Amino acid sequence: MKTIKEVITKKPWFGWILFLASATIVFLLGILASSIVERRSEARYAYRPPTNLQPFESDNSIWGKFYPREYQTFLLTADTSFRSKHAGNKTIDMLETDPELAVLWAGYAFSKDYYQARGHFWAVEDIRNTLRTGSPMTPDAGPQPGTCWACKSPDVPRMMEKMGIDSFYKSKWAALGPEMNNPIGCADCHDSKTMVLTITRPALKEAYERQGKSIADAGHQEMRSLVCAQCHVEYYFKGEEKYLTFPWDKGMTVNEMESYYDNYGYSDWTHAVSRAPMLKAQHPDYELFRLGIHSQRGVACADCHMPYISEGGVKFTSHHVQSPLNMISSTCAICHRQSEEELRNNVYERQDKIADLRHYLEEILVSAHYEAKAAWDAGAQEETMKPVLSLIRQAQWRWDFIAASHGGSFHAPIESATVLSNGIIRALEARIELAALLEGMGVKEVMIPDYSTKEKAQKAIGLDMETLIREKEEFKKQILPGWEKGL
Amino acid sequence: MKTIKEVITKKPWFGWILFLASATIVFLLGILASSIVERRSEARYAYRPPTNLQPFESDNSIWGKFYPREYQTFLLTADTSFRSKHAGNKTIDMLETDPELAVLWAGYAFSKDYYQARGHFWAVEDIRNTLRTGSPMTPDAGPQPGTCWACKSPDVPRMMEKMGIDSFYKSKWAALGPEMNNPIGCADCHDSKTMVLTITRPALKEAYERQGKSIADAGHQEMRSLVCAQCHVEYYFKGEEKYLTFPWDKGMTVNEMESYYDNYGYSDWTHAVSRAPMLKAQHPDYELFRLGIHSQRGVACADCHMPYISEGGVKFTSHHVQSPLNMISSTCAICHRQSEEELRNNVYERQDKIADLRHYLEEILVSAHYEAKAAWDAGAQEETMKPVLSLIRQAQWRWDFIAASHGGSFHAPIESATVLSNGIIRALEARIELAALLEGMGVKEVMIPDYSTKEKAQKAIGLDMETLIREKEEFKKQILPGWEKGL
Repeated sequence: MKTIKEVITKKPWFGWILFLASATIVFLLGILASSIVERRSEARYAYRPPTNLQPFESDNSIWGKFYPREYQTFLLTADTSFRSKHAGNKTIDMLETDPELAVLWAGYAFSKDYYQARGHFWAVEDIRNTLRTGSPMTPDAGPQPGTCWACKSPDVPRMMEKMGIDSFYKSKWAALGPEMNNPIGCADCHDSKTMVLTITRPALKEAYERQGKSIADAGHQEMRSLVCAQCHVEYYFKGEEKYLTFPWDKGMTVNEMESYYDNYGYSDWTHAVSRAPMLKAQHPDYELFRLGIHSQRGVACADCHMPYISEGGVKFTSHHVQSPLNMISSTCAICHRQSEEELRNNVYERQDKIADLRHYLEEILVSAHYEAKAAWDAGAQEETMKPVLSLIRQAQWRWDFIAASHGGSFHAPIESATVLSNGIIRALEARIELAALLEGMGVKEVMIPDYSTKEKAQKAIGLDMETLIREKEEFKKQILPGWEKGL
Repeated sequence: MKTIKEVITKKPWFGWILFLASATIVFLLGILASSIVERRSEARYAYRPPTNLQPFESDNSIWGKFYPREYQTFLLTADTSFRSKHAGNKTIDMLETDPELAVLWAGYAFSKDYYQARGHFWAVEDIRNTLRTGSPMTPDAGPQPGTCWACKSPDVPRMMEKMGIDSFYKSKWAALGPEMNNPIGCADCHDSKTMVLTITRPALKEAYERQGKSIADAGHQEMRSLVCAQCHVEYYFKGEEKYLTFPWDKGMTVNEMESYYDNYGYSDWTHAVSRAPMLKAQHPDYELFRLGIHSQRGVACADCHMPYISEGGVKFTSHHVQSPLNMISSTCAICHRQSEEELRNNVYERQDKIADLRHYLEEILVSAHYEAKAAWDAGAQEETMKPVLSLIRQAQWRWDFIAASHGGSFHAPIESATVLSNGIIRALEARIELAALLEGMGVKEVMIPDYSTKEKAQKAIGLDMETLIREKEEFKKQILPGWEKGL
């Protein structure tokens, strides 16, 4: 064996090769080190705390200057290309797909217009354009109160700060229109100084306080669900003040919230067909989610709807809030080792089973409403009808609880199935009583109008859609342009 | 620095210390090596293939000589200390806990006697002693055919080989009594030469063949469920030959099996109260299990009911077949990282929700049976009653499908909830028709007898329990001792 020294002494060019090789390696190490440093500084830049965000800054694009990744992914909520496996590339008109919904909501605004929800980006545009908010041609015109804005814009905490919470709720929806120009965004969930997750809406805080709890005790992982629970919950407008209230005082299950409403003698409206005192479930997403296995295992809303993603050296939270089925690889697959297809099919299987129960309940609820009407028409007495109408109210509450909750059949499939079962039980029990009642009054046939399309269903419940649409067009032409300019 | 050599030269005693330390270490290494070799040889001994087991050896204790661990754990199935969270340390008399079951099975043997199943160890003893098998005082007396033994003993494959499958099923239960002395055990699932898992019962093989499949294609993991599926399935006794048959030709769901029975015009019995043509679900454990997430993820029955355990150096399959809730640390905890308490509560939550639906369905089925009876009594016509009785049949089939399946509300909770919902739907739809029918015939009240205890319920459906029990005692005294001696 020769030593390297001996080789170099004999063949000096070998020394140069060694020198160049070493130099190359050192150079590449330098590049690597630089790359690491660069990524670090990139990360530092990305997470640099903002210096000049004003409190209650509601313009998302201003936050976007400091948090470009979060902002750019937030902008992606404008994308409506995935709605459900049945919808393809468009937003579903629920009343067209399920015209019986118009009958179920007869006498209530949802029978006029009900589209599947779109991304946060569209929150302001969609509430302006829906027939449910009507066509107020003056700031003090109805039909809706300011409370309707509560979940639609980061301008809400700004205006609540300015005018007070009570005044905000009590004012008319139209009066606040010019102030609401930014869709659900940064200031809804973040503190403008520290970026910490924060609760900006009073209703959640107040519900906690009435239960003897404090939001301040919630850790970060819990906050990653609670900021969503500011809006994705069951709620109602309390009293003449239309004060936004969560009916959680007795608990957060379908039974406990019903009991809250019952005790309070509350109903959202009187059904136009059956005259039943109805409850409209809003979207009790958080309440149902809590009863499912993912919540029980400590998963937060954001884990699946706003997963961590990486760009360059930066790991950040995607603000493209959407169905996890659109991004299985960065959501489900973090914990589950199955293929995307298998996981997707697992979800579809749950959804399909729950949907079968839901559709059945819709059908028998329609029958129950018209059978009740037939009983009234045949001269049934108030006290005979009361227990029947109460069953119809309970049944439809349970149906709506599941129908209105986004993702409930995935979040808590067993709870969803049992809630629907209990709805079915009550609707059919009402129909048993009605069957005997009608037979006893000699009513052999119950007339149920043709509700096979949205148009027919809306006509059947007496809606003058032409006028409603014409008035809305007028509103859009004369009022909306001013709102968009803040006038 | 001094070298060791220099130290030893100066201080010889240090050399001795070094020598002794080395010797000690080498000695300990020797013990370790010996321990490893010993554990290996222990394992070799435990898994030594048997050399003198006869084909169709039905005596479990003979297998136990070669497989002491498996045998000893099998013997533990005699332990009935865990039955359910509600039962404490005794076997539940289901008719005592739920007297309405007697009404639901009026006219069928299950109304006489129905205890919660005990471990495999008791299979022969329990079938001998139940009132359902009656009191045959001669080998050719009824009421039950030989088919009833099919799942109770490794003597079954032995006798089938000896007398032929058809003859086995066709003979009377009493005729085979003296041959059946070994409870469910080794030869039911294992080949006596190779110990490989094997299907010993014809019904499963035949069901596969009719579906164009072959058991021979099943891998080992699949066999760890299929050996259980020899018995833990829905089945019926076909035709006069009482040929044990799985109704799987159209598929294995509750609807597909119902459709199979309907096509075949099959009913297990005519209900003694309502005269409905009834189906009795057996225990469709395997069919329901297949629809749940654990099966979908490739878990086999044995993974949770017969987990691997270690003794000394030997890993083997526990043959103490029981609820995984009794051994969470060696079953659930293999995959799930939650505490035993949390996992147990997760199961209880599923069970409780399903149980609520099940109990409700039981109640309304009782009402439906008696309302149908009231309609018959008031002179209802055959063709009016037919659709009503058909709904009752469908409803009770769905109830029984879930009620009879062991662990269904854990194996497939969503399927269980939806099957029960569909049962509830059919029972209440029957009651809607009955309500109108009864009102139309002027029947204002339906008499439902007191069925609040097992005794009252059995009396209400016209059972002479005293005679049944007296006859059984006679049978136990005069016939059983002979059977136990193989006479």
